[in-house]
Amino acid sequence: MSLRLYDTSTRTVREFAPVEPGRVTMYLCGATVQAPPHIGHIRSGVNFDVLRRWLTHSGYDVTFCRNVTDLDDKIIRVAASEGVPWFVVAERNQRAFTWAYDQLGCLPPTVEPRAMGHVPEMIELMHRLIDKGHAYASAGDVYFDVVSYADRYGKLSNQKLENMRAAGDTDTDSLKRDPRDFALWKGAKEGEPTWPTPWGRGRPGWHLECSAMATKYLGGTFDIHGGGVDLIFPHHENEIAQSQAAGDGFARFWLHNGMLQLGGTKMSKSLGNSLLIPEMLTKVRAVELRYYLVSAHYGSAIDYSEEALQESAAGYRRLEGFVSRAAEVIHDVDATAPLPQAFVDALNDDLNVSQALAVVHEVVREGNVALSQGNKEAVARLLAETQTMLGVLGLDPRSPQWRSSGESGLHEVVDALVAVALEQRQAARARKDYAAADAIRESLAAAGVVVEDTPQGPRWELAR
Amino acid sequence: MSLRLYDTSTRTVREFAPVEPGRVTMYLCGATVQAPPHIGHIRSGVNFDVLRRWLTHSGYDVTFCRNVTDLDDKIIRVAASEGVPWFVVAERNQRAFTWAYDQLGCLPPTVEPRAMGHVPEMIELMHRLIDKGHAYASAGDVYFDVVSYADRYGKLSNQKLENMRAAGDTDTDSLKRDPRDFALWKGAKEGEPTWPTPWGRGRPGWHLECSAMATKYLGGTFDIHGGGVDLIFPHHENEIAQSQAAGDGFARFWLHNGMLQLGGTKMSKSLGNSLLIPEMLTKVRAVELRYYLVSAHYGSAIDYSEEALQESAAGYRRLEGFVSRAAEVIHDVDATAPLPQAFVDALNDDLNVSQALAVVHEVVREGNVALSQGNKEAVARLLAETQTMLGVLGLDPRSPQWRSSGESGLHEVVDALVAVALEQRQAARARKDYAAADAIRESLAAAGVVVEDTPQGPRWELAR
Repeated sequence: MSLRLYDTSTRTVREFAPVEPGRVTMYLCGATVQAPPHIGHIRSGVNFDVLRRWLTHSGYDVTFCRNVTDLDDKIIRVAASEGVPWFVVAERNQRAFTWAYDQLGCLPPTVEPRAMGHVPEMIELMHRLIDKGHAYASAGDVYFDVVSYADRYGKLSNQKLENMRAAGDTDTDSLKRDPRDFALWKGAKEGEPTWPTPWGRGRPGWHLECSAMATKYLGGTFDIHGGGVDLIFPHHENEIAQSQAAGDGFARFWLHNGMLQLGGTKMSKSLGNSLLIPEMLTKVRAVELRYYLVSAHYGSAIDYSEEALQESAAGYRRLEGFVSRAAEVIHDVDATAPLPQAFVDALNDDLNVSQALAVVHEVVREGNVALSQGNKEAVARLLAETQTMLGVLGLDPRSPQWRSSGESGLHEVVDALVAVALEQRQAARARKDYAAADAIRESLAAAGVVVEDTPQGPRWELAR
Repeated sequence: MSLRLYDTSTRTVREFAPVEPGRVTMYLCGATVQAPPHIGHIRSGVNFDVLRRWLTHSGYDVTFCRNVTDLDDKIIRVAASEGVPWFVVAERNQRAFTWAYDQLGCLPPTVEPRAMGHVPEMIELMHRLIDKGHAYASAGDVYFDVVSYADRYGKLSNQKLENMRAAGDTDTDSLKRDPRDFALWKGAKEGEPTWPTPWGRGRPGWHLECSAMATKYLGGTFDIHGGGVDLIFPHHENEIAQSQAAGDGFARFWLHNGMLQLGGTKMSKSLGNSLLIPEMLTKVRAVELRYYLVSAHYGSAIDYSEEALQESAAGYRRLEGFVSRAAEVIHDVDATAPLPQAFVDALNDDLNVSQALAVVHEVVREGNVALSQGNKEAVARLLAETQTMLGVLGLDPRSPQWRSSGESGLHEVVDALVAVALEQRQAARARKDYAAADAIRESLAAAGVVVEDTPQGPRWELAR
């Protein structure tokens, strides 16, 4: 079975094939950097990172473009309330997003364009639309003429133009030919940053940016466009209208991730402050947070609760525990181990990561049995499979991402020091000084090192 | 004494005062991202970071703009040789620079604009120059007319126009009014990325970018412009010409950092590969590399040698050793300790960091004496002074930058485990089992923990 993906625009699961054999071009609507990210924002980045890794593992050369929207109404408001220019807010929050993506193990995008750096490309696109009769200038604004595109407008969001209502923006309705028209460009307003255009100074409409950036970096027709389900309408509908009306093929597959909810409602800033990434990383480790965010199907809603998070993290630690114990026995892991077919099938089935993780857990169960039986050959095979599968998902506990160079040096020091303490405990037992042996065990526990005696000798791990 | 800075444009040390009281605007010519950075590139970032920190400490609200040149001839060549688009090379290397700046403890810029995101601003600047008769279009290129600006051209680099020779670019000389004219805009060439302008498609001349970005983010007149001495001519000379001819005041102070040389020659790619930042961080820790890069005066050349680097790192470890030992005695460091006047005077004297560090070393010498005398009051004062001074330079060993959250957890585990081992050694001695005591010491050494017995009890540190 080859990769099949649920395409929002056809509302079917379709066999995936790229425009150009061997190469995938992929655009993800990234952050509007008005505030630092909460896990709802990062869920999208992490899930599309898994898709990208899977495409790469499947042999494709992936060009992955994730944009930054560095100006919008909210950024202007935040900047005004702080008394700083808009770009100070944008820069600061963009760094916070990059940091969060990095922490969560998202591979860097091939290119990460900022919207306000693409005004010439937006002007060119507006020229093309005006020339073809799909857009018009009006008192410094430029609008897309939805009626000119009526037969195709609404396809992505499965609506008909005649059933759509206007946004009801009374400020601009008088400037529009039809109240359902949307702004490609907004004329200058007092106190707002502006760029020059043939129609006067102003700033971009949000939808226009993504059409301009996606086609600049990926070409007029590209393979996959991703984003949250909350972007289907109007943002993605309008991207399609702009680009296809201008003559581009635009995206061939539309993928949408579900929302992360708190108690059944979409996360908002007031609810979500406790879910900012630095806060989250006091609750669980980054790799555990990543595991939690990918373990539900990307398209489904997640109702966040700390209990579910901690349960999920415990699930990851079971996988990690096997890898760690098995690695004590097997020093030479076969990095080329083939993936179990059930794992491949799960990911090819519209990126069913929860099913793929069920396969990993099954292999780890077998691995633990093999370990307890001292079946080294089976342990070697099952460890290799586990690490390869987790590697594809960006979750291999022994990857450099999760064992940073700075820490790995210290991990080795900790390993050696624990060995010193365990030898002393052994020596104390040998001289029948059981009080001393117990004291060492207690001191270790106080240091965060939990020792368990097993028939194979003492095992230890760091308490979280 | 207030801050005095050497201003290249007047070739004098001048008293610094900003345009707007209490606020400093500062531009640094950042990376051309054709390759990952070596320490020569990062030296500039680190030294201007110290200036920025000193200005902030002195009470100024600093807006610091460091640009990224994301397209030039070399980036186009690298991309062509790899068979990838230019922006793939730019994005990858920009990340490598950001990583290196972060590793070396440079505070993030207030804004970090990419040049190719500022074509509209460049077009506006060209319009202004053409309107005033200082620039002209020629066959798709746009040139600055140096003769129109003859009386002021050459002031920064201390040359007279009549003594200057043309670059001797025979390809474009026929398009110029004067062979010394320089390109603001380069017309489209086959296979190169282009942007539209009223004079045809093309791409920016390097000099134009910095004028457009600096004035966009800092205003027509701003306080400090920094960069390497190799940029004085033609880059900075041309920036001044463009901006002042267009009617902007532009930078009021021009600061230039010296080059980092290898055996007396400027670092080049072939020589410098072993000096890439990840390589360097296998030789010394990041904080030691920062110390090395700031310890010479920013304006002087550094002749790199590994011996000098290691000597410098040992110097930093002396400071760190005092802070670490003193912190065992003093748990509550006064973070508001005033800076010694000699330290303040040194930094105010054109940022004389080597003199400032001499003051730190002197305080640390006194601190070590106070420690050995058990003079806790003096230790408290000298520790506070040391940490405050090092903090201003971005070198406080106890700052979060140098004790990352991930590692600090492990550091505590290591501390606790070493304590367990030392207790066991003490117990072995108490029961006169000197062989066991020695064995523990040897095991600790093997684990990388070096123990020294002192009259005050055992002291230990991690071997590098």
